[in-house]
Amino acid sequence: MAVREKVFDVIISCFKRHGAEVIDTPVFELKETLTGKYGEDSKLIYDLKDQGGELLSLRYDLTVPFARYLAMNKLTNIKRYHIAKVYRRDNPAMTRGRYREFYQCDFDIAGQFDPMIPDAECLKIMCEILSSLQIGDFLVKVNDRRILDGMFAICGVPDSKFRTICSSVDKLDKVSWEEVKNEMVGEKGLAPEVADRIGDYVQQHGGVSLVEQLLQDPELSQNKQALEGLGDLKLLFEYLTLLGIADKISFDLSLARGLDYYTGVIYEAVLLQSPAQAGEEPLGVGSVAAGGRYDGLVGMFDPKGRKVPCVGLSIGVERIFSIVEQRLEALEEKVRTTETQVLVASAQKKLLEERLKLVSELWDAGIKAELLYKKNPKLLNQLQYCEEAGIPLVAIIGEQELKDGVIKLRSVASREEVDIRREDLVEEIKRRTSEPLCTC
Amino acid sequence: MAVREKVFDVIISCFKRHGAEVIDTPVFELKETLTGKYGEDSKLIYDLKDQGGELLSLRYDLTVPFARYLAMNKLTNIKRYHIAKVYRRDNPAMTRGRYREFYQCDFDIAGQFDPMIPDAECLKIMCEILSSLQIGDFLVKVNDRRILDGMFAICGVPDSKFRTICSSVDKLDKVSWEEVKNEMVGEKGLAPEVADRIGDYVQQHGGVSLVEQLLQDPELSQNKQALEGLGDLKLLFEYLTLLGIADKISFDLSLARGLDYYTGVIYEAVLLQSPAQAGEEPLGVGSVAAGGRYDGLVGMFDPKGRKVPCVGLSIGVERIFSIVEQRLEALEEKVRTTETQVLVASAQKKLLEERLKLVSELWDAGIKAELLYKKNPKLLNQLQYCEEAGIPLVAIIGEQELKDGVIKLRSVASREEVDIRREDLVEEIKRRTSEPLCTC
Repeated sequence: MAVREKVFDVIISCFKRHGAEVIDTPVFELKETLTGKYGEDSKLIYDLKDQGGELLSLRYDLTVPFARYLAMNKLTNIKRYHIAKVYRRDNPAMTRGRYREFYQCDFDIAGQFDPMIPDAECLKIMCEILSSLQIGDFLVKVNDRRILDGMFAICGVPDSKFRTICSSVDKLDKVSWEEVKNEMVGEKGLAPEVADRIGDYVQQHGGVSLVEQLLQDPELSQNKQALEGLGDLKLLFEYLTLLGIADKISFDLSLARGLDYYTGVIYEAVLLQSPAQAGEEPLGVGSVAAGGRYDGLVGMFDPKGRKVPCVGLSIGVERIFSIVEQRLEALEEKVRTTETQVLVASAQKKLLEERLKLVSELWDAGIKAELLYKKNPKLLNQLQYCEEAGIPLVAIIGEQELKDGVIKLRSVASREEVDIRREDLVEEIKRRTSEPLCTC
Repeated sequence: MAVREKVFDVIISCFKRHGAEVIDTPVFELKETLTGKYGEDSKLIYDLKDQGGELLSLRYDLTVPFARYLAMNKLTNIKRYHIAKVYRRDNPAMTRGRYREFYQCDFDIAGQFDPMIPDAECLKIMCEILSSLQIGDFLVKVNDRRILDGMFAICGVPDSKFRTICSSVDKLDKVSWEEVKNEMVGEKGLAPEVADRIGDYVQQHGGVSLVEQLLQDPELSQNKQALEGLGDLKLLFEYLTLLGIADKISFDLSLARGLDYYTGVIYEAVLLQSPAQAGEEPLGVGSVAAGGRYDGLVGMFDPKGRKVPCVGLSIGVERIFSIVEQRLEALEEKVRTTETQVLVASAQKKLLEERLKLVSELWDAGIKAELLYKKNPKLLNQLQYCEEAGIPLVAIIGEQELKDGVIKLRSVASREEVDIRREDLVEEIKRRTSEPLCTC
């Protein structure tokens, strides 16, 4: 949890820096709210037992509840973040940070705006967070559902197979094109020459020059949807250059994203195994953030079908927790799980009353303080407790100190002890433990 | 959520001040873990549908999962807090802050320690939090399960009826003694003279002098359990005096607490309707925090029955949210839901590129900044947005400013505008928005 809190702090401060407010939704939704939103993964939804009343399911992600919330409250315009747990009846894989209960950190912009400005901000946020977390080099793959659909159309994929072929393409980051082609042809009944045409496209990736090149593609440029998608991507790259992140972005025609609800630009950030050898392709070690545009989802929950265009991103924070934990372990860095600044200790017996009085004074002054819950603890045990818990200071009460009106303040690291007048103790502790990490 | 975050900040900083670490447990537990822990309220537990695998239920509180966690990880010593949602299949009463999904904020100390020191700290924490939240005057009722059990025994209540008579006594804060007596006699089959003897006790409350008085009670003092409870309460009052909170504590023999797992001291904080008229009894408006000692719960989850004594408290934060919200509404105080410091605006058309460049500079420098997602927004609309969202500053780009290398910085409140050199802008915004609330 100590590691998690550090990661959340980075993420939340970025979301706030971009002007988002925070919302919360219940952990369960009406079962019907979740039905038909997640494609093949719907089987992973947890249902609640029917104990009377509504049929409920645990939320599967934060996007569908957000869309439901917008429609229900008739909101047409909001920039919000939401950090909460979601639930999937999946086989957990602890080492890869995959659980049945896990956190998502979502940021979304809802509203009718000029093209690609909010989309560009979402990519900026992903880059800011991944840079701040210092988890290694990363790349953000970008594509557009309209380009994919246009490409499928001109390659000769029947309309009814768009979504399932999309799922196959999405596997290209894990398996070879040969395997994906076998799935398309063998399992999904696509003609081999159609699959080959798809293969020619989806194996391409690059920067804005690839966008320009495809805009010249005699067939793709004739497809209305693809043309729109390519035009928007061109504009997106202009904005990303202005936001200083164009070098992190790769237009990748194999990026498809499994979820049904995306309608426009889609993106996914992957960590690169560093350092990449010269001339060698950096190897992706997995997705840590993703998102895209979903202009139709809110309308599905509005009785009159009113649409609210949305674009957003989700940080795959469980994977990041694993990476940060491994890094800290490798560094043999011990993470403190408490923030206690000082232990109130006594050198002799029968001083519990004095310890209670002093610790109470410190708490009332806002100092983070503890005492051992023993009537007569040994000084050695009290010092040992500080070593184990990483507490930097000990305020030691003794009979002589009580007579002199002082407290012996000991630094655990240096073992130095000085007498401090009792009335100066709070200030001295604050001075010694003032946090250089404070970002005010 | 903005109000909630303020309340959570107060609570978390108190928990950390007392040296607690934070833990998390899953939202669902094995169904059997929750069985038999909540007395008559067990019917309110939400079960998950049997979709294969383990039978699961949503957690009903944070205490039972904590005890399960201690036993499972063989922990014998921890001071932790946990802020999370719990679930009850109850009839919601929104105005009283009662929901089917709600937050609990728990702090517990587990371990074998000298008597009443951790118990006293729990009461100190309750008082610190309720004082910091400024939600009005409060009183903490204290009792001990052993005193109640001893009292029931000497009054002639059969052993098998202790828990159910306890539930009746617990209603005395809401209904009159007459009604409670009727329930005991009519519904629960207690002899009227036994009920009357209970009535003589449970209508008493006071300070440490009542403890002393009961220690002299010829019958109660002969009961081993009651004597232990009274002895511990006497010690507790000594510690509470040293911690400076004895005046907030009332020994109240009618306090019983519904849950089965308490074994020693129990407590409950109630808000008093202020101001109390002279000579008038202050009227309780409801419980906002509660807790107690539960020395047997962890042992129920340990295969060898090893006990870990625990004492803790839970803040009833939903009630507190309602109170704080009402107070803010009454003050007509508008709570900002975002923290944006500056809006990057433009005075003329065709400056989107310049706005994107500037806002990106500000984000990279850690400034909380927004821009409108329009290619050519009107200046008036941009200023209006600041008024509505409470954004204090506007950084205005114009063609002249671009030529001069300056940005016009406008204060939304005073409408004053000054030209700031672009390289000084970040510092100037930080200076103007430095937060006086920062508690470092």
